[in-house]
Amino acid sequence: MQSTMQDVPLTVTRILAYGARVHSSSRVTTWTGEAEPQRRTFAETGERSHRLAHALRALGVREGDPVGTLMWNTGDHMEAYLGIPAMGAVLHTLNLRLPAEQLAWIVRHAADRVVLVNGSLLPLLAPLLPHLDCVEHVVVAGPGDTSLLAGRRPEVQVHAYEELLAAQPGDPYPWPELDERAAAALCYTSGTTGEPKGVVYSHRSVYLHAMDVCNPDAFGLTAAETCLPVVPMFHVNAWGLPYAAFMAGTSLLMPDRFLQPAPLADMIAAERPTVTAGVPTIWQGLLAELDARPRDVSSLRTVVSGGSACPPALMKAFEERHGLTVVQAWGMTETSPLGSVAYPPHGLEADEAWPYRITQGRLRPAVDARLVGPDGRVLPWDGKSAGELEVRGPWIAGAYHGGADGEPQRPADKFSEDGWLRTGDVGTITPDGYLTLTDRAKDVIKSGGEWISSVELENHLMAHPEVAEAAVVGVPDEKWGERPLAAVVLRDGAVVDYAGLRAFLSERIARWQLPERWTAVEAVPKTSVGKFDKKVLRRQYADGELVVTTLA
Amino acid sequence: MQSTMQDVPLTVTRILAYGARVHSSSRVTTWTGEAEPQRRTFAETGERSHRLAHALRALGVREGDPVGTLMWNTGDHMEAYLGIPAMGAVLHTLNLRLPAEQLAWIVRHAADRVVLVNGSLLPLLAPLLPHLDCVEHVVVAGPGDTSLLAGRRPEVQVHAYEELLAAQPGDPYPWPELDERAAAALCYTSGTTGEPKGVVYSHRSVYLHAMDVCNPDAFGLTAAETCLPVVPMFHVNAWGLPYAAFMAGTSLLMPDRFLQPAPLADMIAAERPTVTAGVPTIWQGLLAELDARPRDVSSLRTVVSGGSACPPALMKAFEERHGLTVVQAWGMTETSPLGSVAYPPHGLEADEAWPYRITQGRLRPAVDARLVGPDGRVLPWDGKSAGELEVRGPWIAGAYHGGADGEPQRPADKFSEDGWLRTGDVGTITPDGYLTLTDRAKDVIKSGGEWISSVELENHLMAHPEVAEAAVVGVPDEKWGERPLAAVVLRDGAVVDYAGLRAFLSERIARWQLPERWTAVEAVPKTSVGKFDKKVLRRQYADGELVVTTLA
Repeated sequence: MQSTMQDVPLTVTRILAYGARVHSSSRVTTWTGEAEPQRRTFAETGERSHRLAHALRALGVREGDPVGTLMWNTGDHMEAYLGIPAMGAVLHTLNLRLPAEQLAWIVRHAADRVVLVNGSLLPLLAPLLPHLDCVEHVVVAGPGDTSLLAGRRPEVQVHAYEELLAAQPGDPYPWPELDERAAAALCYTSGTTGEPKGVVYSHRSVYLHAMDVCNPDAFGLTAAETCLPVVPMFHVNAWGLPYAAFMAGTSLLMPDRFLQPAPLADMIAAERPTVTAGVPTIWQGLLAELDARPRDVSSLRTVVSGGSACPPALMKAFEERHGLTVVQAWGMTETSPLGSVAYPPHGLEADEAWPYRITQGRLRPAVDARLVGPDGRVLPWDGKSAGELEVRGPWIAGAYHGGADGEPQRPADKFSEDGWLRTGDVGTITPDGYLTLTDRAKDVIKSGGEWISSVELENHLMAHPEVAEAAVVGVPDEKWGERPLAAVVLRDGAVVDYAGLRAFLSERIARWQLPERWTAVEAVPKTSVGKFDKKVLRRQYADGELVVTTLA
Repeated sequence: MQSTMQDVPLTVTRILAYGARVHSSSRVTTWTGEAEPQRRTFAETGERSHRLAHALRALGVREGDPVGTLMWNTGDHMEAYLGIPAMGAVLHTLNLRLPAEQLAWIVRHAADRVVLVNGSLLPLLAPLLPHLDCVEHVVVAGPGDTSLLAGRRPEVQVHAYEELLAAQPGDPYPWPELDERAAAALCYTSGTTGEPKGVVYSHRSVYLHAMDVCNPDAFGLTAAETCLPVVPMFHVNAWGLPYAAFMAGTSLLMPDRFLQPAPLADMIAAERPTVTAGVPTIWQGLLAELDARPRDVSSLRTVVSGGSACPPALMKAFEERHGLTVVQAWGMTETSPLGSVAYPPHGLEADEAWPYRITQGRLRPAVDARLVGPDGRVLPWDGKSAGELEVRGPWIAGAYHGGADGEPQRPADKFSEDGWLRTGDVGTITPDGYLTLTDRAKDVIKSGGEWISSVELENHLMAHPEVAEAAVVGVPDEKWGERPLAAVVLRDGAVVDYAGLRAFLSERIARWQLPERWTAVEAVPKTSVGKFDKKVLRRQYADGELVVTTLA
């Protein structure tokens, strides 16, 4: 028996057409730092997306071509989000926080010929431009000093976004009929180790992900809401919120470059968004600001926190002092990013709900997950067995963009033989699908077919009154494969007492997990973003640079 | 540039696996009319779906085969909903309210070899069985008098559902890897004219539709909700609620055959569902019941009404007298059925919201709509221009099952040349996507390239104090193609005064819409379900059976 359903592709074009028509009066408001924000309706945003497509076509952009955007969260960027994929080109969001060399590498790897840039970011782009030999056109959105570009690469044509749009015909762009598996958007992982990896989202994945973002057990976007995406539009498509909002008719409040706590608090009080999303660092800053200078933030029903684990103390402080509910969610560039959201099961008292709320969340319906243990076996969802998280689903990456031969690449450490994404995170899953991540897989200590969590050991050690900081890494061991080495930074005046520390640990963890090898260091080596740099510790150990005491 | 996303099909199998695992403790509760309802968890429901698949496989069911279900809304039926599509077979829900001949025709047309039937429906099935020569196995779920089947067709094997399940292996059924465009479910339209038409839903369409049903601007199902589908599971898959609920972890309260107002009120009070859905007739009965014998129905946040227009007075009565919000939605068998939901725009006062709430609703994001006028041109969405509604989308039918050659059939009166579904309904759409349906296209009067709404004329005529009932049909006219004929039933004692009625109308509608032809009848001919039977009136006019007065 054959299905008799229509075969209609799921595309960004449909999101654009629907939002601009049915929710024509919903708004994209961009904070300007001045008396009046910039306000555009969805109808205007749609119309300008058509003009942008006309303009890019005139600059030579064809189906399948990437178009770079070096932009903050703005109304203009929203138009690029819609118009570029709808014309069949690929929206390539550029992470303006990356080191210059990495950013240049990414532009060249993607082969962007056109880059849209906020005028305020010209000081960042200008010195890069000589290294971007693929770029032929720079389109400058909003005010900025274009003279900064002068002489950098004379063959590059510089355009003003508004002039370019004004010069286009007012008639609709003839959107092509796209296959839903065609490329829609490209985002590179920041890649702390090795080269950045490009994830190419399809129209299908963007559409399905937007549907799920709107789900009430996810972010619950409706036509009655206003969403403030603090998460940048160059971080995994601002977690898919712009597309979901345009689909749902949810008004958007775009913060532009005003991501400091004070303007964020000001715009929340003035524009009254109902839902917002960002990383814990942003919420830490906002909390301090609100504590110091209270604003009316009562419009917010939900503050979504993702990107890294949100400290429970921060969640509690928001709730107790400002009546705001922080909801954790988990995802990564490779997962579009929605993987799980930490709403507790129904009907629990606040204190019963808490253990669920501090997890990475409950898996979303379209996301299959499995935990793979040190021996490669799939582990049970019992809330205890820890394994590397692997995921599968219609908005999960199964490859990276452009290997040496230009074809998608599937490195074995990132994708399983049967096509699942290896997240590189180690954690547990409860029987009812709540995920807790504890370690990066590369930091877990593989000891005799079992895993020891370095993060757990570190947390226990740092709870000792004489320890200022502690890092634990796996080092080679003839008998066990790997064993933990504990590197501790003692507080001023403290005296080294490894046996005492070991005794302290033995009250808290299983005996076989206790480190034999100990060393005292001046400071734990750190990466540029302040994370423990365990590579350095392992190398120092291997090179014999550490004074190690071994306890029997 | 190629997408790097995984290619994971959207299937019922995924809904089943996710719901049974992540929401294992959500419940399917079936009302029994006795002290205790039947309660099964999603985990048990999932496990039983596997057993059902094993059993059907043993009875010879293969991928692509239809399996009939002649069942009320029950936990057993839910298992069929999940297990049959997941094994690659096709769930064929049979409408037990159809005339016996039509039901038999449908079973034969689909070629069902296995039929699952509620024991309580054996009195319906038994006399049909001799006419169902394709049927080889009957599986009886729940208590019933199987002796009714004796001697009807001795070659048919009769099985007890529970025994069949108990006899199966407990290990999981090896679900096949299905194409998302494979057939999942089959539902025939009741077809008031001509043969019933089979709509075959795909796994893809079922999955996408379930995602949309969960959307907060649709039915808003979450893991915190309990849903009471009063709409039968043989009516367009109970509007997709069972699949959406299993995906969202929403507990289901199944009414079985207890659809009378009193048990409905009882089960709402006892089991406290948060959302329910059904046709206006059901709500009319429930309102009277609650007025007469109040129950605690405060658990319900939303009462969804669809299938036909809900009288505004009914909506208001529920709100004022019982604090219940009725939300209208529109759809049809061919649209899975979710097409539009009548939530008003944000921020309106109750009296401003009312005009939106009595529409058929706002179009859902995945559903494209257009209005096609009498001359075939697409009309604007201005809330005034009336045309036939045509729709397109990933869960909209583009054909019907099995024409003479066994291939899908695309009759030109049902599907446009470019593949859109012609709904056969005439209406208007506002600029912000609110749909109002007024007439069936076949009842609209095509007068000189313009359409006259028969329903509008009837409503005006029936507002006249001397008119008890009125029907308006189009009759052939040499000059205009068609013109309206008004057939009125006068109240007792009233005197025929066509000129007066015409003058009454002329104050309410445009002059060119005024009927010239008038007739008085004893009663308006009705169909078996009580609708005006305009075919009969047109025939009576054509055959000269009516006494017609013509006004200049």
